[in-house]
Amino acid sequence: MSAITVTVTGMTCGHCVASVREEVGEIDGVTSVDVDLASGRVTVEADRPIDRSTLAAAVDEAGYQLAE
Amino acid sequence: MSAITVTVTGMTCGHCVASVREEVGEIDGVTSVDVDLASGRVTVEADRPIDRSTLAAAVDEAGYQLAE
Repeated sequence: MSAITVTVTGMTCGHCVASVREEVGEIDGVTSVDVDLASGRVTVEADRPIDRSTLAAAVDEAGYQLAE
Repeated sequence: MSAITVTVTGMTCGHCVASVREEVGEIDGVTSVDVDLASGRVTVEADRPIDRSTLAAAVDEAGYQLAE
């Protein structure tokens, strides 16, 4: 098991949260995705290590960006 | 043909716009729905008169409210 937490900018509503959750959840090995709209915090658990760049690509696919 | 314009509050992103457009577009007789996110202005064209209360119900179904 591995866990990584990133901050996503630009999410404004529950639809945005759902989009991020869906795209990140499609990454191979991901077992859970927790998204907090207020803080932008996204916590991902997986059965293997997940690169930040892989996460960034999924977040971009959803239409959002990782904070620096 | 009839047209009615209302203002919807609470839309924050393109997903919100899509939700409102979808629900309002399902009202019988509606032929076009134009949603402006910045102003909240929703303009509906239909082949029959559409009540404000019918529009309000569709907007509520999408998760938003009409402004007074």
